[in-house]
Amino acid sequence: MRTPAPIAPAQGKLGVLMPGLGAVATTAIAGIEAIRRRLAPPIGSLTQMATIRLGKKREGRSPLIKDFVPLAQLDDLVFGGWDIYDDNALQAATRARVLDGHHLEPLQDVLQAIRPMKAAFDPEYVRRLRGPNVKTGTRRELAEQLIQDIADFKAKNGCDRLVMVWCASTETYIEPGEAHQSLKAFERALDQDDRTLAPSMLYAYAALKSRVPFVNGAPNLSADIPALVEMSRELAVPTCGKDYKTGQTLMKTILAPGLKARMLGLNGWFSTNILGNRDGEVLDDPGSFRTKEVSKLSVLDTILQPEIYPTLYGNISHKVTINYYPPRGDNKEGWDNIDIVGWLGYPMQIKVNFLCRDSILAAPLVLDLALFVDLARRAGMRGQQEWLSFYFKSPVHEPGTKPEHDLFIQQTKLKNTLRWLRGEELVTHVEE
Amino acid sequence: MRTPAPIAPAQGKLGVLMPGLGAVATTAIAGIEAIRRRLAPPIGSLTQMATIRLGKKREGRSPLIKDFVPLAQLDDLVFGGWDIYDDNALQAATRARVLDGHHLEPLQDVLQAIRPMKAAFDPEYVRRLRGPNVKTGTRRELAEQLIQDIADFKAKNGCDRLVMVWCASTETYIEPGEAHQSLKAFERALDQDDRTLAPSMLYAYAALKSRVPFVNGAPNLSADIPALVEMSRELAVPTCGKDYKTGQTLMKTILAPGLKARMLGLNGWFSTNILGNRDGEVLDDPGSFRTKEVSKLSVLDTILQPEIYPTLYGNISHKVTINYYPPRGDNKEGWDNIDIVGWLGYPMQIKVNFLCRDSILAAPLVLDLALFVDLARRAGMRGQQEWLSFYFKSPVHEPGTKPEHDLFIQQTKLKNTLRWLRGEELVTHVEE
Amino acid sequence: MRTPAPIAPAQGKLGVLMPGLGAVATTAIAGIEAIRRRLAPPIGSLTQMATIRLGKKREGRSPLIKDFVPLAQLDDLVFGGWDIYDDNALQAATRARVLDGHHLEPLQDVLQAIRPMKAAFDPEYVRRLRGPNVKTGTRRELAEQLIQDIADFKAKNGCDRLVMVWCASTETYIEPGEAHQSLKAFERALDQDDRTLAPSMLYAYAALKSRVPFVNGAPNLSADIPALVEMSRELAVPTCGKDYKTGQTLMKTILAPGLKARMLGLNGWFSTNILGNRDGEVLDDPGSFRTKEVSKLSVLDTILQPEIYPTLYGNISHKVTINYYPPRGDNKEGWDNIDIVGWLGYPMQIKVNFLCRDSILAAPLVLDLALFVDLARRAGMRGQQEWLSFYFKSPVHEPGTKPEHDLFIQQTKLKNTLRWLRGEELVTHVEE
Amino acid sequence: MRTPAPIAPAQGKLGVLMPGLGAVATTAIAGIEAIRRRLAPPIGSLTQMATIRLGKKREGRSPLIKDFVPLAQLDDLVFGGWDIYDDNALQAATRARVLDGHHLEPLQDVLQAIRPMKAAFDPEYVRRLRGPNVKTGTRRELAEQLIQDIADFKAKNGCDRLVMVWCASTETYIEPGEAHQSLKAFERALDQDDRTLAPSMLYAYAALKSRVPFVNGAPNLSADIPALVEMSRELAVPTCGKDYKTGQTLMKTILAPGLKARMLGLNGWFSTNILGNRDGEVLDDPGSFRTKEVSKLSVLDTILQPEIYPTLYGNISHKVTINYYPPRGDNKEGWDNIDIVGWLGYPMQIKVNFLCRDSILAAPLVLDLALFVDLARRAGMRGQQEWLSFYFKSPVHEPGTKPEHDLFIQQTKLKNTLRWLRGEELVTHVEE
Repeated sequence: MRTPAPIAPAQGKLGVLMPGLGAVATTAIAGIEAIRRRLAPPIGSLTQMATIRLGKKREGRSPLIKDFVPLAQLDDLVFGGWDIYDDNALQAATRARVLDGHHLEPLQDVLQAIRPMKAAFDPEYVRRLRGPNVKTGTRRELAEQLIQDIADFKAKNGCDRLVMVWCASTETYIEPGEAHQSLKAFERALDQDDRTLAPSMLYAYAALKSRVPFVNGAPNLSADIPALVEMSRELAVPTCGKDYKTGQTLMKTILAPGLKARMLGLNGWFSTNILGNRDGEVLDDPGSFRTKEVSKLSVLDTILQPEIYPTLYGNISHKVTINYYPPRGDNKEGWDNIDIVGWLGYPMQIKVNFLCRDSILAAPLVLDLALFVDLARRAGMRGQQEWLSFYFKSPVHEPGTKPEHDLFIQQTKLKNTLRWLRGEELVTHVEE
Repeated sequence: MRTPAPIAPAQGKLGVLMPGLGAVATTAIAGIEAIRRRLAPPIGSLTQMATIRLGKKREGRSPLIKDFVPLAQLDDLVFGGWDIYDDNALQAATRARVLDGHHLEPLQDVLQAIRPMKAAFDPEYVRRLRGPNVKTGTRRELAEQLIQDIADFKAKNGCDRLVMVWCASTETYIEPGEAHQSLKAFERALDQDDRTLAPSMLYAYAALKSRVPFVNGAPNLSADIPALVEMSRELAVPTCGKDYKTGQTLMKTILAPGLKARMLGLNGWFSTNILGNRDGEVLDDPGSFRTKEVSKLSVLDTILQPEIYPTLYGNISHKVTINYYPPRGDNKEGWDNIDIVGWLGYPMQIKVNFLCRDSILAAPLVLDLALFVDLARRAGMRGQQEWLSFYFKSPVHEPGTKPEHDLFIQQTKLKNTLRWLRGEELVTHVEE
Repeated sequence: MRTPAPIAPAQGKLGVLMPGLGAVATTAIAGIEAIRRRLAPPIGSLTQMATIRLGKKREGRSPLIKDFVPLAQLDDLVFGGWDIYDDNALQAATRARVLDGHHLEPLQDVLQAIRPMKAAFDPEYVRRLRGPNVKTGTRRELAEQLIQDIADFKAKNGCDRLVMVWCASTETYIEPGEAHQSLKAFERALDQDDRTLAPSMLYAYAALKSRVPFVNGAPNLSADIPALVEMSRELAVPTCGKDYKTGQTLMKTILAPGLKARMLGLNGWFSTNILGNRDGEVLDDPGSFRTKEVSKLSVLDTILQPEIYPTLYGNISHKVTINYYPPRGDNKEGWDNIDIVGWLGYPMQIKVNFLCRDSILAAPLVLDLALFVDLARRAGMRGQQEWLSFYFKSPVHEPGTKPEHDLFIQQTKLKNTLRWLRGEELVTHVEE
Repeated sequence: MRTPAPIAPAQGKLGVLMPGLGAVATTAIAGIEAIRRRLAPPIGSLTQMATIRLGKKREGRSPLIKDFVPLAQLDDLVFGGWDIYDDNALQAATRARVLDGHHLEPLQDVLQAIRPMKAAFDPEYVRRLRGPNVKTGTRRELAEQLIQDIADFKAKNGCDRLVMVWCASTETYIEPGEAHQSLKAFERALDQDDRTLAPSMLYAYAALKSRVPFVNGAPNLSADIPALVEMSRELAVPTCGKDYKTGQTLMKTILAPGLKARMLGLNGWFSTNILGNRDGEVLDDPGSFRTKEVSKLSVLDTILQPEIYPTLYGNISHKVTINYYPPRGDNKEGWDNIDIVGWLGYPMQIKVNFLCRDSILAAPLVLDLALFVDLARRAGMRGQQEWLSFYFKSPVHEPGTKPEHDLFIQQTKLKNTLRWLRGEELVTHVEE
């Protein structure tokens, strides 16, 4: 195992730039501000709350992660972003109806001060939304404007470092095409105003060009194409993604490893979701839904390894549906029917009803990923960060390998990576 | 880390002696027979179906566990046991209504041939049951009769080795008393016909005395008292327990680590069960229920570590109820309400409805534990086997330490112990 | 109120002809045969099990319905039908996997003897199915062949009377067109081989032409078009329909009246279904699903009367989805989320999970409707029988009126109609 | 049918006196005040929102109930009550955490002005509660003090009429004893300070003595003993009860009639509840739970008539449990497992999960019952009012008769009683 490089200290301000200042972004910003003011604990955030066990169990060494690796301080974070609506963060948060009025009230000043920059938007990629706060121009022009936005934000806010964290909508489904195969092809496509470059790719390109790490919270291709992987390696910028693992898929990556641990078979897994927020509206479009569906469906196969366990997992009916149902608002609800098979082939059922809150689950991921990807940058890590798979529905991975979906392996990988970074012994749970 | 001893080969017949030839035992026996005849795959059994990854991921080495460590062959197993009813195994299986008639039919001859020996029973310990097939005598006399039963069975069936696997009822709740504190006190209590020695302790004593490993599938104290721990160490016999982890608690040890991995808080966890089998009838007695309740309640605290995470897990309403509801039969059903807390303290709910089958989930554990505890014996392991915690609701553990309840750590521990036994590298999920 | 006509006695054999000898029809036939042989009670059948209260409560008069009105005897029933597969009823029942082998075994002879006649089928109307056992010819020729089938069956089986009970698939969605507006237009369309005449209309036409009452168990238009309503009145033949009310919609027409009785408001009602039988396969086609969806969605509006209660029911998100999920087989499962609103607008939720069996719920309706529509014929009732709304998802109704969906009003209507037929006092539940 | 008496007009103020100024009472008061100020519609209240159909359906006559019978106006209501805590109604409402702060804020003045009178309380009857605001004295003295309270309240508030509506806790289980058999025995027991007179009986006695109608919202015996029934008849005062039908039992009386309408059999009905309010705390005491359990269990038998339908309903496992689970607060949650049986005995399951709000469902019943029992008084109706069964879990009924539990028959009874009071034709749903 190679020796880790020394990690640069986290000095100065860290700017967090978010494409999409909607429910997720404003919930994250409001929450971080509340935490800074000691109004709330940082529930759901590993970087703030979790400990990491070091050495043997009997040694009793379990520092907080934030005391173990040099992360940016919450007080050093500055927020900005882009949106197709020109609501400030307070208006957007109020509209999103995630947080109650009494939670927003003490934070009004901070939220009002955050106004979105004009978005790079193409309605062909998100068919159910239209907004006034958009840039115009060719793909190349849009990219240049974003690069300029980044530079302006950094200068204006006196930031030492920046990260970009995608918090906007799911784009329509596309497969990687010719323009995405190399950085050269990508640059040419920019010049030719090639519409196969999705807006999210322009953001990722602008970030990388500016040496800003990019976190992809949606299932969009974005930085996960050969062209931008190449760019991130060459410019030594880390990226990670895709698609925040929050509600139903989080549960899937908890439950499936558990069932497999016990060698229980599976006949089918039927997942349905009802949600009534803007995300639900966007996913009511078949193109955007397809992108999300691919992200959600991939999970089981890699966890269950049907190629190794054909008797148990070789023939699973796996179905995922999403329904736009306005009464739910942001309170996304999942219903899963898991048809398992036991001894002698006897069938059993597990039904999981998750009354969750979409943005409440996503917000701490925004914080953790901003801090971890900034850590990665300072530790000299480049390209796609597989050790952050823990946070994503569709973890990026090396071509030719399979992504790791098992939440518990992902967790071990994340924590052992931190241990490795600091030269601590890796944990194996034997003879402790 | 110390070097493992060489493992004696698994030659000759292995007798599996089960106190309690009811639903669980007969489902296990019938299933193993069906598997031997290639009528069914061994679903739910790690020893038969699971693989174990060796070396680095890219090496692609993943043999079956049963090809990796020298386990007894299914064809070498012989079954016997005790029960308070004198039904043969076919009658008992039919009465239990776990397996359909068409599954039992081809196995009739084998099952009919298995007739229970007279049980050592005390109605004070299981108040809801009475049966005619019972031994009489003092505690000492009962123990001696059991030792004789074991010797007779071994001789009659030409067994090379034996294991004892508890498949009988939950006894009433007791705390370890004076008679349980040392082997000497225990022996004296036997002589004095001391009623604080529960029948399950007599079985465990008889097994250990006969150098037969003891598996404790119920939450009863049984071998988990200082007297018998001492005896198992001195006589170099392994034991393991307590209480098969099957339905609701299995789910709990899958879900709780997942929620904790994400630093989601918990306000409460309400678990209710409905079941209509003999087990449900026994647990309708408050004394027996108390024993089970203690076993079920202990789980969350050790997984969640409220002492380290008081904000998240310091104040949980954890409640478990069991309801005897005849329409369910053996199809135990669990309903869990998990009240979680996220970002800024927002509450969410996870509801899990598990339509499970009690004996179907327990049967493969009988097989795995019989084989693993026999392996442990041949590998020279003695005393309580913590690496088998994976299978138990209340894992035995060293005094002064906490049991490990997290299913995924338990799994890592089990597999890394097997790797260690064979001199293979332990897995850490880093840099693979 | 007009005086009822005398009812002709139920003498001789009653032939029950079923288009579609699949899961529903064979479950009905097998069950009726089992009941005739005293192997099972007629659970789910009003005509066989229900009582009807007469006079004041204190009089204690509650005869069985079958002793109160002159229904055909079960022993007088003879079964026949059409299907696109040429399986006999035993094969079809086995394939449908609704009834266990041990239920079918004693009935083998009877079931094997029932072989389907060739079906009038048009794949344009049911896109997911294809079968070999089909008639050829123009619409007119198909109709004539069906009429001949009916006459042949009657003669061959020595029937005194016949009824036709639709048990086949849901056809694709169509709106009534020109050819359906009058009997004359319909006859002309037959001659012109007009494909807007759905196969189910040909069956209904053939039945009416033969003076055979027609029961419509699917949501297809069938006899519910002006042309055939006209015909049923002129020829004095009763019809009824549409779409057996079995699982989820049955629950809806039970729950919605209850919520309305208490003036609880409604924000939304989300219904999803998973099923894996042939019906599920057919409904996976958007055209057939649309027909079913219209039938399922109509229910709430008429029960809740949003025009009278706009505050409570003026703005409901009502959504119904059906998912083809093979692991369920015929065990259709429904999940309903009912978002209700109470005092001061506070929201509450009712979630209903119905693990039902599609054909088990439908089979007794086949029996009841065959007997009741035959009674109606003998009582001189003609045209659409609204008093049988109790059994249907989309009750037929007079043009310009609204259908009655409330199960409890439907039940009162049915029972008071029977009371009226026999000259008994109608029940009002006052001063009893 | 006898002719109804003329109804005295509803002039002047109507005082509503509530024993128990806790969650239910304060939610009712706050809501009525909000409705008076047009801040909210009276959802859940029949008297305010429901219409009543008159004549034939085609006549289209459906006035609001409040326009059809002469009810007291909301503006004429005045509220008062007793409680063992001396919180004013605002403090009590805040503590109960039923209504959000922003709902209570505009109503602060009204709520603050309502202060509880000292309660007649005996800790033997409600073991889990203790409070400082209690009267002292013998049973006779307590009764006299209550009578004086009533008179004082009436005078002080210038009321024309009063009603008393029980909103306090469930008392421990008792059977009617000697002291309850006649008014004479009751009076003697008062003089002898007989502790078998429960506090709730003293309230009922004081009400009747003051000619004030009494509504019993709890399952306590209260006025449902021969002594007080006799008194209510002699003094021509109406009473009604027992136990508001709100969550789970409401659902039961909706669903059971629906299942019976279809002649579906029942193997079992398992009901569990989790709730965390004061009611849950009180019911955690086995004595109080027993009172509630009896009330909840009685429902199914009378609806299903097992004596008439032994095959379907002769052997039902009916189980009800209540669990005190603090995380739920007032948001009581019910989970029902309904094991139904269909055609040929095939089992099916209905699972109902009701996320309800206890006090939100009860509050409108307080309003309706206050208005209806006042109407009954003005219409000269005396004794137990069976036509108000619609609102109660354990409807009072004539000795020797069975209570009516079917919500739909109850509704018909209520509405037809109103029709009868006004000389309108009763509805039968035939030939409309």
